[in-house]
Order: sequence, then structure tokens, then C-alpha cells
Amino acid sequence: MNTTLQPVLFNHDEVADLYKEIGSSSLMGKTIERLQTDLEQYMGLPMDVPGQSEAGGYEHNKHRQNYHYINLAGRLFLITKDERYAEYAGQLLTQYADKYLQLDFHVQRNTNPPGRLFHQMLNEHMWLMYASLGYSCISTWLTGSQREHIVEYLFKPMLHVATEKYDYDFDRIHNHGIWAVAAAGICGLAIGERKYLEMAVYGLKGDGKAGGFLAQLSELFSPSGYYIEGPYYHRFAIRPLAVFAEVLHRHMPELDIYNYKGQVIKQTTQALLATAYPNGLFPALNDASKSMGITDMGVVVAVSMVFKRYGFDKNLLGMAQIQEQVWMHPCGQVLSEACDAEANIEPPFWPSVELNEGPDGTCGAQGFLRMQGNDKDICQLSMNYGQHGMGHGHFDTLGVAFYSRGQEVLREYGFARWVNIEPKFGGRYLDENKSYARQTINHNGVTVDEGCQNHFAVDRADRMHGKPHFFIGEGTELQAMSAFADEHYPGVGMQRTVMLLKSDQLENPLLIDLYRLTSDKPHQYDYSHQYQGQIIRTDFEYKTNSELHPLGDNYGYQHLWNLARGEAGSHALVSWLQGNSYYTWLGTSSRIDNEVIFTQTGANDSQFNLRHETSFIMRTTGKDLLFASALETHGYFNEAVEASVDARGKLNNIDVLAHNETGSVVAIEGEGIRFIVMVSNQPNVTDTTEHRIIINDKTYSWKGFLAVEQETK
Amino acid sequence: MNTTLQPVLFNHDEVADLYKEIGSSSLMGKTIERLQTDLEQYMGLPMDVPGQSEAGGYEHNKHRQNYHYINLAGRLFLITKDERYAEYAGQLLTQYADKYLQLDFHVQRNTNPPGRLFHQMLNEHMWLMYASLGYSCISTWLTGSQREHIVEYLFKPMLHVATEKYDYDFDRIHNHGIWAVAAAGICGLAIGERKYLEMAVYGLKGDGKAGGFLAQLSELFSPSGYYIEGPYYHRFAIRPLAVFAEVLHRHMPELDIYNYKGQVIKQTTQALLATAYPNGLFPALNDASKSMGITDMGVVVAVSMVFKRYGFDKNLLGMAQIQEQVWMHPCGQVLSEACDAEANIEPPFWPSVELNEGPDGTCGAQGFLRMQGNDKDICQLSMNYGQHGMGHGHFDTLGVAFYSRGQEVLREYGFARWVNIEPKFGGRYLDENKSYARQTINHNGVTVDEGCQNHFAVDRADRMHGKPHFFIGEGTELQAMSAFADEHYPGVGMQRTVMLLKSDQLENPLLIDLYRLTSDKPHQYDYSHQYQGQIIRTDFEYKTNSELHPLGDNYGYQHLWNLARGEAGSHALVSWLQGNSYYTWLGTSSRIDNEVIFTQTGANDSQFNLRHETSFIMRTTGKDLLFASALETHGYFNEAVEASVDARGKLNNIDVLAHNETGSVVAIEGEGIRFIVMVSNQPNVTDTTEHRIIINDKTYSWKGFLAVEQETK
Repeated sequence: MNTTLQPVLFNHDEVADLYKEIGSSSLMGKTIERLQTDLEQYMGLPMDVPGQSEAGGYEHNKHRQNYHYINLAGRLFLITKDERYAEYAGQLLTQYADKYLQLDFHVQRNTNPPGRLFHQMLNEHMWLMYASLGYSCISTWLTGSQREHIVEYLFKPMLHVATEKYDYDFDRIHNHGIWAVAAAGICGLAIGERKYLEMAVYGLKGDGKAGGFLAQLSELFSPSGYYIEGPYYHRFAIRPLAVFAEVLHRHMPELDIYNYKGQVIKQTTQALLATAYPNGLFPALNDASKSMGITDMGVVVAVSMVFKRYGFDKNLLGMAQIQEQVWMHPCGQVLSEACDAEANIEPPFWPSVELNEGPDGTCGAQGFLRMQGNDKDICQLSMNYGQHGMGHGHFDTLGVAFYSRGQEVLREYGFARWVNIEPKFGGRYLDENKSYARQTINHNGVTVDEGCQNHFAVDRADRMHGKPHFFIGEGTELQAMSAFADEHYPGVGMQRTVMLLKSDQLENPLLIDLYRLTSDKPHQYDYSHQYQGQIIRTDFEYKTNSELHPLGDNYGYQHLWNLARGEAGSHALVSWLQGNSYYTWLGTSSRIDNEVIFTQTGANDSQFNLRHETSFIMRTTGKDLLFASALETHGYFNEAVEASVDARGKLNNIDVLAHNETGSVVAIEGEGIRFIVMVSNQPNVTDTTEHRIIINDKTYSWKGFLAVEQETK
Repeated sequence: MNTTLQPVLFNHDEVADLYKEIGSSSLMGKTIERLQTDLEQYMGLPMDVPGQSEAGGYEHNKHRQNYHYINLAGRLFLITKDERYAEYAGQLLTQYADKYLQLDFHVQRNTNPPGRLFHQMLNEHMWLMYASLGYSCISTWLTGSQREHIVEYLFKPMLHVATEKYDYDFDRIHNHGIWAVAAAGICGLAIGERKYLEMAVYGLKGDGKAGGFLAQLSELFSPSGYYIEGPYYHRFAIRPLAVFAEVLHRHMPELDIYNYKGQVIKQTTQALLATAYPNGLFPALNDASKSMGITDMGVVVAVSMVFKRYGFDKNLLGMAQIQEQVWMHPCGQVLSEACDAEANIEPPFWPSVELNEGPDGTCGAQGFLRMQGNDKDICQLSMNYGQHGMGHGHFDTLGVAFYSRGQEVLREYGFARWVNIEPKFGGRYLDENKSYARQTINHNGVTVDEGCQNHFAVDRADRMHGKPHFFIGEGTELQAMSAFADEHYPGVGMQRTVMLLKSDQLENPLLIDLYRLTSDKPHQYDYSHQYQGQIIRTDFEYKTNSELHPLGDNYGYQHLWNLARGEAGSHALVSWLQGNSYYTWLGTSSRIDNEVIFTQTGANDSQFNLRHETSFIMRTTGKDLLFASALETHGYFNEAVEASVDARGKLNNIDVLAHNETGSVVAIEGEGIRFIVMVSNQPNVTDTTEHRIIINDKTYSWKGFLAVEQETK
């Protein structure tokens, strides 16, 4: 058996190549140096294989660190040839082998079955995958009896738990399931038990359909590669996916895994990367942390893998710059070399993309528009007109997020969770995740009658999705996307069209938003904007409240303090300072009795679980209605040098000229500026459809989805 | 006359030395490169010498930029020999000469007399100093008629305004006055009219007492070098001070300015630098911006000047690293070379220091303690027991600020002002500066009976100061400072003793605080803590309010929303997460009915002028009372990698064992930890005074100011 033992992810020549990178100033050289320093520091601490704790507790964290360093020590032993690393990994594995079977299974606390080391098998699978990878690097260095001890008392029992005790879970087609099959497959290879690799690839039944990696690849992603739960969960699944793909490429070449199902691995990796903001953070679509980004370990692996296996892409170089590291693996070395060869690496600037959803791509989409301003700043606008993100879904169909000048401007709240902070409900999802974070009013969209889309019913929401109207992502001066959502509030039709418009008269691309609502009955419509920073000015009077009450009593409103209200009349200007940039929002509806409400989170937050975030809401009542707004990015403020430039911006008026079943026409005005924005409201519009709307004897006509005309003033 | 024309701050050899730095990777080389890029960008914009606007308006900003670039272009012409720069500076100066006398004086809007370019003469003086420096670099390059035009239509009229029209202001001993005399003196030298240099040094009367630079040096600073208005205003005065000192060193060597009055220039520069946090930001003592730091242009000049003129100091190297630049002047070159010669530059770690206040140093002091933790992290604790900062003073005697792990933890609010943001009240001080920012409750101290120290009367406050009790700033394991303030609340005696204690059992130095109050009558005492971040846990029940009301109706309380209250009983634990670090505060008083109130700013803020900041207040009622607290810095959180370590900390109890006229005894406890803290309350204590307090048959005795004993538990 020993003759077949070998590192699962490296061959002899590759190790020799990596050896040459030691001490180099390349990204790979720096990666090796940093990881080695990191490992040496950890090795300086007392070795400890502890018992059990809940998530976020000392023992939980220690087991997480231990698997990470077993893997690292294994790889660094191969690359540096320093036997202290092999000895360290071997000792840790031996102590786990001593202890593993002495531990009882945890008490089950959620739907995820419990492990012996961790409260849920998900973490146990992560442990197994990493420990197996590390073990495979040192197995021939170990003595036969050491190997036997580790295999018999640790790895085989763990494989038994994964594939027999919890066999029903092993075959589940689920994001977590990729960890299970990758762990079992890799461990099987590492200990020379190839049957586990077969199970991992084809499922326990061996048919490649009911379970296993191939079935997961086939079923988890839409044709665009988008993962329904959103980037935060996608980046978590991409780690075992990328690692296991590379393992299969090496150990089951007959699968031709990198070309499997139309290169689904490339597709889904790029779909994930294409959601990231230019600074590398992921928009917090659905339940998600606000600080998760492409520096996540899994994305580091995936960027290196996709570059090596699918070829040169300058955006991957830009991402590697943000990551400041590569995967310490031959794949990463190729990326590192490409970075060295490039004289000037720009920040990533992914093309605009519409990522379809659903098994056949017909369940709506997630749209991402990107445009570069005159100063090379990249702005990004995303809109959700796809599926509900299952149990982690937010009720925010037609919600948008907007990013400019390095910061999220129309903001997502993300999850209500203090992840891994044990005194905060064990680091788990908090009640406020349901009562606030997932609610419609917490997003940048329209809330009808102070309710929530689909009455906050996940099963109903899972059956709904947005309907794409049009997507124009190619232009350098005008891009747009439009979608319908007619079932999310029964009896209310909704259409949202958002666009980025670049003009010589404005510093940065302008975000223009037309949100149309239609109904037979009157409703209250709340058009909400989650912003951060200090209010600089408005063009209407508002009154701050001398005592604060929650804005409502349910659907997230109970968590919003009603800070201030103003009668805005026909339109409203709200300007604020965020970081070093000013933003001015001009909004209106087709009615003249618009009200603006300023809010802050924190009401009915009995444990201080929520962050304090602010929003402003344009509220009006009507049956058929068009909200229109323009968001201008302008000026510069630097408190440290006490400099302020253009704190007022250029735009000062916005007006709905018309909206009907044919289309919507809106005028946006400022100093020497008048844009006429015309958008088709016809579901079956094509790029040759003619539109004509007559208002006060003036005819507005355009061909196709939309038009923006600039009138001289 | 022309033969005497020369650059005011450079000689021929120095210019040649700077020429050699072009393209080098030294700090000076990088400084030149950056400033040159900056100038080239500005030169690419249309040249504009506009009319007038209020502060923060376009014209105001443009005049500011223009003087900056006249100066820069002059120096860069000398250093790089690029005549385009001379031509540019000459053109700008000529346009100003064309326009200056055509402009009327602004309408006066504050106590500062108005200029022709700016709304106040302060800015006009800044303009004159910089433009004169730039002019002196190009004067011999200009033609005689160009020079004459600039001198007759710009500089001489400006000197007339400074020294004749507003002669009463020129001789005022004031922070702004340094700008006036530096501008007049330097301009006089630049145009060959040495009489203005004499006026600038000795005042209009020529006696060196009633006005002028020497009188200012003699009277503006205390013996320790501290400037009464605090670092924010000090760093603004240090710029003309350092520049003009260097000018006088070159042009009036007989003054021996760098040794004047016991090296007051060194003293006051170091006093300013010694207030800075380890990250280079200044604590916002009195009215001040939260983002002002040592990267301010004046401090860059001062650090280079003091290094050249007073010799090597490794903390100045550390500061230059933070500044990432040096003064583009021979002084800066010496600092740049010293940085190059140093293998490893550590962050600045200034010694603990007590900066006395008042003309003879007897009006209290500002205390600064610094201690390094095991991980080399430097924490800093400051306490104000000095004078009121005049018109910019905050009513916060015995207030503290605490900094650890790169962030301010017990925080200053700074000023209520959106500096230079024109739509926010012209960028000037807001009403909320008085109604909130300067009030006692906005600081980290004790507010008596919901009032303000000295009834918020500046004239009364100016007559008061804290009384130093003791200062122990040398220890690596225990440092402390103590002071009294017995007149700030009539009828209430106050003594605060704060210390930093390093222990093997704690990650970081512990902040211990004993705040003693004595009175014949009962009072309400509010012991307030301004924190930032998310509450993680408490050890008492609290109830968040279902509607919010202001905590009070005056003295800043009207701006605090009362978020939540809890009955803490004998002691309270409040733990929060700020950035990547956890903080746990354990507080108690000598009473058992302590209440804790959580607040947030924003009430009665009708224009959204305030930032939203949070505090918690321990409230109790009594006559004589001791508040005691310990603030532990612990653990680590990183949301991006979902890691949390030690979110709970070690301490769990604090107890006042005794306090009387002899001393105070407090026990602080945690896992395996019990510290007994004993502090002398005797005003005339010396390091040999014996103290003995008997509590329940147990005797606590110590010699000197204080003692901390560690008991085994």
C-alpha cells in the first residue's frame, strides 16, 4: 500500500519548482514566507488537542486552527524540506488519533448532524479534508506504525461517520455536501482507499445522480454558474469545489473534470468572482457578512485554479493583487509568474453581467452593471431579480446595491449575526436576522403597505422569481437593466429599471432609477435607501422628532426609529457625506405629496444585537405610481487636511413627465443639464419596438428598450 | 536692491544637495516626487485667480490652493531647475497683483478682521507667508518690472493691511498672531524691506514685549511647552513658528533663536509631539477635529526642523515614517538621511509626560501615560487636570481619553463642526458645539447633578485649573497620575487617580480608574464613558426603551437619547467590540444602588449636525463616593476570516473596600486574579508617607502615593 502513498495535490517536479520560490519577491515567494512565519508562530504555542465546545468557544477554535496548521505544515514540509514541519503535523495527527474515539458526539443543536470534534458535521468535514491533505504530504515520512495508528483510529473512523453513520447526509445535494464528498474523497486517496474517492465522485449509489460531486456540480448551479444562496455561501462552497476539482484532475483524469458539463467549474468560479465589488468585497446578498471578500481562503484557491486551468485573464491578476497572495500550489505559481510578468496591474474591472438563475436559467437573474468614471473609478450597481436564496434568502426582489469610489453607497445590511462571537448567542444567527435583516424594508427597494414581500413566507418566496425585462451591459456611457416582479406583493405590479449614465457634465456615472408600481387599489409605497454618513443638506424642511417611536410594529419597521419627517412635495433632494465623497439623491414620484422619513435601526433591539444604520424613505400613497431618482457622486472631503470641494453637486430637479403601459419619461435637471430618460414598460419590447408618448403636445419617442436624451438648457 | 534678493529659506549649496535627491528612494526623494506630481496636476488645470466667497466656497478654496502652489512651484523651481515652475508661480503672483487692489474687503463675520481675498485676515496672512516664500525662490528669475508690479500692487499693500490697517491685531499675543508676524517678516525679507522683519520680531513698538515673535514665544506657552488651546490649535501655530524660526536662524543669527528662552522652540515642539497617539493622530482635547494628526503640514515642518536643530531622536524617525514625507528643505534632508541610515524604525513611543500649564507652570497639567504591552502594542492614557482651553475649551477637567491597539477606546467627540463644508453652516462651528461638544457629560468623567463644570461659564472656567496630586510615569509595569479639582462644581471635591497596570495574567495593560467625590450634600453623580462599537455582554439585566426620550433638558443631556437602563447593583460589567478588539469595563461605586444608562447622541439635533456616538453612564447618588473601574483590552475578532478569540476577558468583579481622607482601597478580581489597589488621598503625600486603613480587621498599609498588590486566589 505504501508505494501508492503520495501528496494528493503535488508531484515531485512541482515541489521542486515551488522550492525555488523561497525567498523570492514574487507573490508566491511572499505567500510562502508569510505562511511559514505564521506556522512558526503557531508551533511556538503549546500543542493542544482539546475536547469540545460550542461554536466560537476555545476548543472549537483550536480544532479549526489545528487542521489549518496540519495542512500548512504538510505543504511547507514538502516545499522547504524542513522536517520539523513533518514532525509537527505527525504529532498533531497522532494526538487526534489518540483522542478522537474517546470523544462522544456533541448534542445536536441544529439541522446539521453533530460530530465528535465539532458541534456540526460541516466543520468535521472541513477538518477531515485539511488534515487529509496535510497527512498526504507527510505520510511517507511517517513510520508505518505511526501511519497505521492515524489511519485506524482517526481517518477510517471519520470516514465511517461521514459515509455510513450519516449516509443520508453524504448524498444530499447541498452546498455543505461538497465539503463532505471532498473530505471523503481526499482522505480516501491519502490513505490509499480509493473506494472513498469513487463514493465521493459518484455518490453512495454509484450512479453519479443521487449524490456525489458530479451530481452536485450538475445541480447546484444555474447555467450562468450563479449559486442561489449568493456569494457569501458560494465562496464557502468554492473552496472544496476548487480543491477537489484539482484532485480529480490529477487522480481521475478520465473525468476531464475541468471540461465537465460545459466547463461548469470555470463558469461557477467566474460567476462568483463577477459579483465582487472592485475593492474585492462581496455584496452582502442574502444572509452574508459585510466583510467577506476575495481574500477568503477559498477564493484565493479558486482564483489560482481558474487562472491555471482556464488561461490568462487580467482581472485575475488584479484580484491576486488584492489578495496579496496566491494558492501555495502549482496553480498559484502560474498566477504569481503572470503577475511578475505584467508591468502594470490594474484593479479588477469585470464586465457587466446578468447571471441567470434556476436549473435551466429561466428563474430570473442577478444583474451587475459596472462603469468606469473619468478618474478611472469603477462604480457597480447590482439588482436582484432572480430567485429567493432559500433559507438564507432576503425578501428583496428588485432590491439594488450601489458602489462608487471604493465604498458601498446604497447599502446592504448583511446578516444579523456576530459570527463566531460566543457571548452573542454562540455566534449564530440572531432573532433580528428574521425580524429585521431579511425584511424588505431593510433593503433598497419599495415596501408596500408596511409589509414584506411574499408575507415573509420562505416557501412562497421560493416559488417566485423576478422576470428579466432587458439588460444592456456593454456601453461605456449608458448601461441599464430592467425587471418585473408582479407576484411578490399580491395585486401589485412592480417594474424597476436602473441605469448608469456617464456625462461630461458630471464627475462620476449617475445612477438613475425608475421604480414603477401598478395596482387596482391604493397602497402605501415606501421607497427606501440605506445610506451611511452625515446628512449635509436637503431642499425641503424636515422636523426631527423630540421623542422617538418605532416606525411600525412588524416586518422590520419595529426596529426603525422614526428620526425625522418632512413634506417634500413634488420632489426631494437629500445629500450626505460618506467617507471622502459627497452623494446627492434627487427623488420624486408621479404624485406631489411625497413625504421623506429618516430612520435609524435600534428600536426593539433588546440585546443591542443590531448595528446602528440609517436610511431615508420616500413615502407616498397611490394605485399606479412611478418613483424616479438620480444619485450623483460628487466632490471631495478630507477632514485631516480640512479640504472640501463641490459639496453641493450639479443636479437640482427631477420630474416624472409620464408613465403608462407604453413607457416612462423622466426629466433630470441641474446647472446647464437636462436629461430626458425614456424607458419602455412593455414586457415584450425588442430593440426595434417603437414608442411614442405625447405630453402637453410634446412628443417623446424612442426605439427599443430605453433612451436618454440630453437637452440644452 | 536686487543684489540682496535670495530665497528666504535656502542657500546655494543646500539647493544643490536637494537636487541630488531627485529620483532617490529616500523620504526626501519620495517627497520631491510626490510634490512634483501634485504640482504638475495642478498646473494642468486652468489658472484661476477668482473673487471672494465664504469659507469653504470655491473661491476660498482656490485662493488656498493657489498660495500652496506658488510656494511649491518656487521651491521646486529651485530644486529641479525647471523654469516652467518659476513661470507658473510668477504668472499667478502677477494675476494676484492685477486683482488684489480691485477687491473690496469682505464683510466682517467674526472677531477676526476681514481680508480682501479671504473672509478673515488669518487666511490672508497664511496666503502672504506662502506666497512670499514662493516669490523669494523666483524673484531673481523674474524681470525687474515683474518684480515691481508684484511688490507694489500685491505685497506692499498686503503688508500695509497687516501692519497699519489692522495694527491693533498685529501686536496681539495669540496663536493667530504667529501667522501675522511670520507673514510680515518673511514678506519683508522677500522684497528687501527689512523693517518688516524687525516689526515681526520685536512688535510694532519695537520693544519685544508688547508684540512680535519674541513676545509670543515668551507668553504663549507654559514652561513645559504646552499650548493652552490643545494640540489641534498648537499644530496650527507650530507651522509659522517653525518656518519663521528657521528664517530667523538664517537672517537674524544674532537672536540665536533656537536657544531663545531656554530652547522654547524645542520645548513647545516636543510638547506638541508628545501628545500624539502612537498612530500619529492627536487626541481631540478641546475643540478639535478627530482626524488631525502629525501628517499635518505644520507638523511635518516641525519634525524636520526639530530633528535638524536639536539632534537625533528615534521617535522623530518613527514619526517621519507615519508622515511618509519630510519638509522639502535642508532640515528635512537631514531627517531623511537619518531614516535611511536606520535599519529598523519602530513606531514612535514617547515617554510618559506631565505637561504643566500656566505662565509659570503652576496652573495644573495635562498628563500622558504610555505603556507597551507584551505584543509591543502601545497604549496611551491622557488626563486633563490643567487649564480651561479659553474660547475653545471643553468643560472636562479630570476627563480622560484612552487608546489601545491602534484606536481610541474611551473617546473624545472633538468639535461639532463640519470643517470647510460650506452647506453645513459655512463649515464653521455649529450651535451643537456649545450645546453638546463642550459639555462635561460628553467626556469621560463625572457630571454632577446633570450640570456642567463651572456652569458652562468660560470666564469662571478660565480662572480654575486642576491640582496635580502625583505623577508616576516611569514604570514598565505600573504608571499612575492623580489630581484634584475642587472648585469646578461648587461644594463638590473631586479626585481622580488613573493608572496603567501590566500583569502576566492579562494580554494588555489594564486601565484602573478611581474617581472620588466628596460633598456635604447629596448629589447625583454620572460617571460617563464614551465608547464605540457593539455591546457584547453585560453582567446585569438592562431594559431597552420602547420609545426614546432625551436623557435631560440641558448641559448636553438634551442631545442624548436614553437607549436603555439597568439596575447594576454593587457593580457592573459592560463589554463591547470595537474594530478587531474586545474591551471589558468593570465598574462600581462605594454604593450598592448603581444604575447603568446607555445613550446615543442625536436628540434635539434638528439639522443632523451631530455624529451618532454612544456612551454608558454609571449613575448613583450620594455625598462622599468613590467610583472605581477597570478597563481590560482583550481578545481578537476578524469578521473577514470569521475568527473570534477570548471574547470574554479575564476580569469579573470589582469592589471598593474603603475610601476616606487617608486613601482608597479597591479589589479587582478575575480568573485566578486579585489585585488590591491602594491610593493615597492626602494632598500633601510624598513618596515616604505611610498609610494604613483597617477594614474588617484586615489592615491595608502602603508607603507613598499608591500601591498595587497581587493576592493569590
